[in-house]
Amino acid sequence: MELDWTDIAAKAQTKLRNSIPAEYRIPLDKLPPEDQLDVTGFPAKCGLMSELELKITESYATEIVGAVAAGEWTAVEVTKAFCKRAAIAHQVTNCLTVVMFDDALKQAKKLDDHFSSTGKTIGPLHGLPVSLKDNFNVPGYPSSVGFCAWALEPVKKESTIVGILRDLGAVAYCKTNVPTAMMIAESVNNCYGRTVNPLNRNLTSGGSSGGESALIAMKGSPLGIGTDIGGSLRIPAACTGIFTIRPSYGRYPHFDASTGMAGQEAVASVHGPMARSVADLRLFAENVSNSAPWLKDPKCIPIPYRPVELKPKLKFAVLWDNGIVHPTPPVVRALKEVAAKLAAAGHEVLAWPADDHAEAMGLMAKLFVADGGQSIKSILEASGEPLRPEMQFYGQVNDTGVYELWQLQKQRTALAKRYLDRWAACEGLDAILSPTTPYAAPKSGSLGRFPTGVVVDRERDVYGSDFEAYGEVDEVTRKDYEAAAVHGMPVSLQLVGRRLEEEKMLAVTERVVEVLAS
Amino acid sequence: MELDWTDIAAKAQTKLRNSIPAEYRIPLDKLPPEDQLDVTGFPAKCGLMSELELKITESYATEIVGAVAAGEWTAVEVTKAFCKRAAIAHQVTNCLTVVMFDDALKQAKKLDDHFSSTGKTIGPLHGLPVSLKDNFNVPGYPSSVGFCAWALEPVKKESTIVGILRDLGAVAYCKTNVPTAMMIAESVNNCYGRTVNPLNRNLTSGGSSGGESALIAMKGSPLGIGTDIGGSLRIPAACTGIFTIRPSYGRYPHFDASTGMAGQEAVASVHGPMARSVADLRLFAENVSNSAPWLKDPKCIPIPYRPVELKPKLKFAVLWDNGIVHPTPPVVRALKEVAAKLAAAGHEVLAWPADDHAEAMGLMAKLFVADGGQSIKSILEASGEPLRPEMQFYGQVNDTGVYELWQLQKQRTALAKRYLDRWAACEGLDAILSPTTPYAAPKSGSLGRFPTGVVVDRERDVYGSDFEAYGEVDEVTRKDYEAAAVHGMPVSLQLVGRRLEEEKMLAVTERVVEVLAS
Repeated sequence: MELDWTDIAAKAQTKLRNSIPAEYRIPLDKLPPEDQLDVTGFPAKCGLMSELELKITESYATEIVGAVAAGEWTAVEVTKAFCKRAAIAHQVTNCLTVVMFDDALKQAKKLDDHFSSTGKTIGPLHGLPVSLKDNFNVPGYPSSVGFCAWALEPVKKESTIVGILRDLGAVAYCKTNVPTAMMIAESVNNCYGRTVNPLNRNLTSGGSSGGESALIAMKGSPLGIGTDIGGSLRIPAACTGIFTIRPSYGRYPHFDASTGMAGQEAVASVHGPMARSVADLRLFAENVSNSAPWLKDPKCIPIPYRPVELKPKLKFAVLWDNGIVHPTPPVVRALKEVAAKLAAAGHEVLAWPADDHAEAMGLMAKLFVADGGQSIKSILEASGEPLRPEMQFYGQVNDTGVYELWQLQKQRTALAKRYLDRWAACEGLDAILSPTTPYAAPKSGSLGRFPTGVVVDRERDVYGSDFEAYGEVDEVTRKDYEAAAVHGMPVSLQLVGRRLEEEKMLAVTERVVEVLAS
Repeated sequence: MELDWTDIAAKAQTKLRNSIPAEYRIPLDKLPPEDQLDVTGFPAKCGLMSELELKITESYATEIVGAVAAGEWTAVEVTKAFCKRAAIAHQVTNCLTVVMFDDALKQAKKLDDHFSSTGKTIGPLHGLPVSLKDNFNVPGYPSSVGFCAWALEPVKKESTIVGILRDLGAVAYCKTNVPTAMMIAESVNNCYGRTVNPLNRNLTSGGSSGGESALIAMKGSPLGIGTDIGGSLRIPAACTGIFTIRPSYGRYPHFDASTGMAGQEAVASVHGPMARSVADLRLFAENVSNSAPWLKDPKCIPIPYRPVELKPKLKFAVLWDNGIVHPTPPVVRALKEVAAKLAAAGHEVLAWPADDHAEAMGLMAKLFVADGGQSIKSILEASGEPLRPEMQFYGQVNDTGVYELWQLQKQRTALAKRYLDRWAACEGLDAILSPTTPYAAPKSGSLGRFPTGVVVDRERDVYGSDFEAYGEVDEVTRKDYEAAAVHGMPVSLQLVGRRLEEEKMLAVTERVVEVLAS
């Protein structure tokens, strides 16, 4: 690299700013004031969007593909509406890294041409704009993964999922911000800076798929593709009150996505959809599975989409806390309310033990830095970029050696077996209900899956006087919690199923959402 | 360990000898002379086995479960017949490590009691004796894995597959020899010595599942369970002219089997069945898949047995050689004859390129010793056991470090993707037909899947004068080949399918066998 990281960051930011069409730019004095925390209503108020564009962007992905297939909206109309709204979302949350509007509109035009000449869509996602987490590769555009060194380098290869989505008719139009190496639970890096939560800009949109979560919560994207290795889909979804599914490894193709830890396999990274409804997640799951991705990704498992029928009464086990950190009061309240409603609806609800969670956490932490952080540090070094404060421990670790890695992998597999046996012993268990994080949404600078309808209440959601901390992390979590700071934020929880039960977990989530709504 | 490895080896051998019931022992002067190479006919001639016992042991696994379920044979009769024949097989090939006859007969008695009281079998493998490669754990018996240090230590845990087979009604009655750490392509170790090929005792029965292959070729077992990481099912099956399937990782449960390289995951070890017919392999595949092993093994993939229907005409690609070593003349002839018969039967047959094979081989070699051989060496050191001459390179390697491992894993995944793309580009390809090893069966001291019917002919199977070696290994392979030494040996080949297509590959193999027989 010729350029220093600060020069690259400045250039990349300028390039990004300039890639937003002039007509989508909001004058500084028209932007919401800095102390306006909730900016989700801004797109409708900024004056840039037509009635139709607002209608399109407020629609669900399933509605959009229906309307385009019915000839009601054109792919160009839809794509343009989302390009515009994404540009607006970016200007109030800093959620984008790459703008691909021109290419997207060209592709949409082709789709429209095909539709008008044949009367047919090219696939089930015909004309649906999709946003991509920064690490998905689109030839000709960079995948910075939060590294300055990569921010100005266009990639050559295409991620397998990108090609599959295009073949299904989807239109990729932007890429979204991530933390450095995607290894922080917020979305902040030395190149593009920090993405904030559009529901409350004092708070983080989570990470590492936090550019996606901010964009989707702004309705700047109907469907986004993120990734998850230790919560990177779930945390940002929970922080912004949207839906996601963290699929099993091998279910959806993950080949040729960029990463700061290439070749790391002991803890598997996966990709998954993020959206505003379970039906939209299913739109992705069903069509990607049925595209036979295993013919394109050697790690993908040949299981087509399998429709499921749930039992009328389900069995849930609640992980009230993980024995490491007590959930903060709003999360405890959400767990209680959801568990009570499930029980009231006739479902079986019991408690799930926190066994093995602390060991799993410790193992994951060791496995992430088993290479001594060398993969990440060598990319940083290429541009002289320093480690961010959140990642200082990468500077304090050494390569464990392969022998030690094998011992850790052996320990991890033994733990997985114990967990599986515990599941099997709880006969008929359908899902574990648990917190996604201990927080509703943490403040920026400190740190899901389905929104519960519970909203943080500064009066009710306070710690009781009987709190006893499990340890330092728990103590800090309690201290950092300020009910007033998260007042009004939605609280999300997660449902955990067995491996490769994506179809079932979507159905179970839908069932739970129905119960909460009834 | 208190004992030195030589003491342990002596004790373990004595223990093994003593565990064979006195009435199954053959006096030294009744054993075949040392220069008798083919001992497959010895069980029928030794005078120990009754007509019925010979009939039982000459039957296929599918026939046995049918006869027991029909009440024609009892589980005790069947188990006893195989215990006896296994004992005889051992005395002429040195194929066993652990004898569990007493426990097996007790279990068979229980099965018979159940059957006579209920009129029902307990499962589809009711009363079927199965032999286990030494590394499968049966509580109370050692799993030496070829290490002296482990040879006298009874294990406590049970391998998942062992419990599943028992629940299906199968009766485990013996464990079979392997090479040290299962990392040599013959079955020889410092504890139990060398297993020889019953078709020609100058030759190896292959490895690492070479105790199994010798036992099955002797008809001392109707169905054996072996393992494979780099050919350990295929090589011994090919050396002895039996059938096996090297399944995809995750298809059958592999949890809690012993290994000398615990925690090694970059090259996946799998287990699979070995038998004398495709139908017997399917008996295993169908029933194990349908036992929902994914509820017991966290790495097992939830795919039940899926019946397949093949196209009438299949498409085969022949890997004539891998670009590293030319197959020896009998293997080349077998490939030519099989390819010609397939084409004559109307199947499509084309050539498959050797691209990436040399790189794959190099990668595998590096990944096996990425820990610097420390896992294996530390087990050897516990009893002061020296590295065998075949494994001297373990003494010359260092731990690569995790960073380098990640680079190798990345390279391996990229290679897998190229291979998959090549497969996809060969539209409609059903299987690759290839050599299993360059040899029919190598001599002991130098080094499948289905027998082709081709038998080595010392006159026909000689190198042509136009041989040009690819390199040193190829040159040595040619030099070591002696047509006379392998005269009369069967030649086996392998068929390679896509990942997790076990059902299809069994059907394709059956189809090929039909073509060869017609």
